[in-house]
Amino acid sequence: MKHVVIVGGGFAGLNAAKHLGNSKDIRVTLVDRRNHHLFQPLLYQVAMAALSPAEIAAPIRHILAKFRNITVLQDEIIDVDLAGRRVIGRDCALAYDSLILACGARHSYFGHEEWEEAAPGLKTIEQATEIRRRVLNAFEAAERQHDPTQQRRHLTFAIVGGGPTGVELAGAIGEMSRYTLAQDFRNINPKQARIILIEAGPRILPSFAPELAGKASRALENLGVQVWTSSMVTNVSSDGVEIGRERVEAATILWAAGVQASKLSQRVEAEKDRLGRIMVEADLSVKGHPEVFVAGDQAHFAHGRQMPLPGLAAVALQQGRFIAENIRREIRGDNRQNFRYTDKGQLAAIGRSRAIIEMGKFRFGGFVAWVVWLLVHIYYLIGFKNRIFVTMNWAWSFFSFRRGARLIVTKEWRFYPPRPPAPPSGGDIGK
Amino acid sequence: MKHVVIVGGGFAGLNAAKHLGNSKDIRVTLVDRRNHHLFQPLLYQVAMAALSPAEIAAPIRHILAKFRNITVLQDEIIDVDLAGRRVIGRDCALAYDSLILACGARHSYFGHEEWEEAAPGLKTIEQATEIRRRVLNAFEAAERQHDPTQQRRHLTFAIVGGGPTGVELAGAIGEMSRYTLAQDFRNINPKQARIILIEAGPRILPSFAPELAGKASRALENLGVQVWTSSMVTNVSSDGVEIGRERVEAATILWAAGVQASKLSQRVEAEKDRLGRIMVEADLSVKGHPEVFVAGDQAHFAHGRQMPLPGLAAVALQQGRFIAENIRREIRGDNRQNFRYTDKGQLAAIGRSRAIIEMGKFRFGGFVAWVVWLLVHIYYLIGFKNRIFVTMNWAWSFFSFRRGARLIVTKEWRFYPPRPPAPPSGGDIGK
Repeated sequence: MKHVVIVGGGFAGLNAAKHLGNSKDIRVTLVDRRNHHLFQPLLYQVAMAALSPAEIAAPIRHILAKFRNITVLQDEIIDVDLAGRRVIGRDCALAYDSLILACGARHSYFGHEEWEEAAPGLKTIEQATEIRRRVLNAFEAAERQHDPTQQRRHLTFAIVGGGPTGVELAGAIGEMSRYTLAQDFRNINPKQARIILIEAGPRILPSFAPELAGKASRALENLGVQVWTSSMVTNVSSDGVEIGRERVEAATILWAAGVQASKLSQRVEAEKDRLGRIMVEADLSVKGHPEVFVAGDQAHFAHGRQMPLPGLAAVALQQGRFIAENIRREIRGDNRQNFRYTDKGQLAAIGRSRAIIEMGKFRFGGFVAWVVWLLVHIYYLIGFKNRIFVTMNWAWSFFSFRRGARLIVTKEWRFYPPRPPAPPSGGDIGK
Repeated sequence: MKHVVIVGGGFAGLNAAKHLGNSKDIRVTLVDRRNHHLFQPLLYQVAMAALSPAEIAAPIRHILAKFRNITVLQDEIIDVDLAGRRVIGRDCALAYDSLILACGARHSYFGHEEWEEAAPGLKTIEQATEIRRRVLNAFEAAERQHDPTQQRRHLTFAIVGGGPTGVELAGAIGEMSRYTLAQDFRNINPKQARIILIEAGPRILPSFAPELAGKASRALENLGVQVWTSSMVTNVSSDGVEIGRERVEAATILWAAGVQASKLSQRVEAEKDRLGRIMVEADLSVKGHPEVFVAGDQAHFAHGRQMPLPGLAAVALQQGRFIAENIRREIRGDNRQNFRYTDKGQLAAIGRSRAIIEMGKFRFGGFVAWVVWLLVHIYYLIGFKNRIFVTMNWAWSFFSFRRGARLIVTKEWRFYPPRPPAPPSGGDIGK
């Protein structure tokens, strides 16, 4: 029986597993360092207090429980031994006949990792609740302040990066300050929040058509968001961002500017692009290793295209399924095929009732686009229960203008944290 | 205009604020170190992955937004100046005409605070998600293990304290291992989990009638929980508990054994009991300070009773309302009244479809009791939306045997945590 190891339970890995499920000739082990699959396109809604983490995440183990040939392990894979056909985790090592790498992407600060503390990115549940904590805390801190300069700093939100995530975050903060929080404060008016979307390129949403990006800009401005284009952030600190000689005092800075492939890519001996993504063959395998496949954000696939495929859920889903089908094809004795991407278009939401959609030549924006956005996201949400709950939550928020998860949660859970170690005693005290 | 300061947004403080709302002669400031009111009776369901934090918590600011005479501040009050009629927070200081202290309780490890790291208690959202993380992680770790001794250690859950919280936690772990997780693992059988409820006294649920405690014990045993009474825990470490000379190897230990009054009580110059609760007069005021009231778990009220009032939501709600009414009475020129507690009884759930209820002479247990438990908790849940969502979640869980929030969330949100400082260089390196 052939053993397929899948690293990563995102869209690509999970879909590959599903399409290998119930196969009699294949045994599958899916390894992920998390216990949950995350529906990343809605993660910004957790960061913006609209949804709870559990509404967009489901245990991988449970999703795959019905496939008796699949084992799910929670472990972090830290090395890949291509020659020995093994992956090595912190707690386990697994030998494979076929390997599917689908570890996704993480943020890139372009060599300025020290900016992360001041400007969190949005890739995990932990980061989403951290951002939620910072955004809600900013309004609380402004309410406590009487110094107008400090108040303004607390009420300034800088979002770095004008791609879909940056646009969705900025729109959601705009909506929150204008509607959700409007009546809840006494010393401040949340509507006076300054929300600045900072993009280094000449326009936001470069992957969309210019007229849609223009529509998005106007929708953002209606929510009070200032869009600064051609503005390259040159420094980030805990109290603001610098754009060349300009400086904006902002208590909350969010990073949505760049991604790079997951760290495990560094341990794979294969050609990579400048984002660390593994260059794959036309069948998504690694050159010289037909038994190793890479899918999703971790792969650079450019065959017959000007640009590599973008980091979209649709790409990951199709690639995961395609790899599973190729593996089954080979076991049946058929030839492998080459991957072809079916472009399903792209879409982004702006605030509570606007979106933009681009499907080939078909482009539109506004309320109808937002309804389509809603239906598409509900359709793809994993799990019957989550679909119903997210739909209900959205309906409730839409009509009440409220948000369901306005919680500030801290990192420390203990009442009695251990005391810091005593200073070393000895001759050098007081030096 | 009289300024009433309320410290704490739990059942007592929030209810006091509501009953002072819209009063023309009173200005109210409610201070809490959290931004949310927590519906503590259901916190164990968050710890047991059944509900999301946001479903049992709501922003205090929003609950009170309609009362224009109430200001909500998020701050931690660290000192009380009774003589100067001021409370001092980390970020603000507030002068008051009347003060309501309602800071609640925290866990007590009877002088063994170092046990907390190994045996978290359940008072906050952070603790609930920490417990959820540990319980779910235990099953994951057991699945990765092949050594049966290690597997058994991972699948052993020790709950210290046989009060309602301990019983509810033990029942929920029993339910989880028997139903929710039963099909999801390959190397282990979750049903083999050992769940031990350890109580120092001669029986569990001492506040309930003996026959109900007996019913609860049998319901727990049906869920695979072993009930150990007359068993005093003498040591807790990261890999187990000791009961005198006995030793149980358990990877997960939960603490539900004792509480003490909130830390702020120490800063109030007044008589206290051995749990640190402030002894209050018959009108809930502090002796010698008729303008200072204490309510809820922070108060020791024993007038005309053998035992002080227990730490129940019903007590806190009634006391909060009573204090608000006395303050309004005085402003109208009427005399203060003395507090009288209306006993509404008590109830506890055991697993997915059993509960016990005691209302005076009226005592029953089983499925009907569980339905009553359900209705009571839904009725008291704050906020229209939370009620609907919790009800739906319960209905879904009841019929599907699943749990809605099986997420393991870690504490670290950063991809690039700062490196630890370099070791000091100098003469003593290599010593």
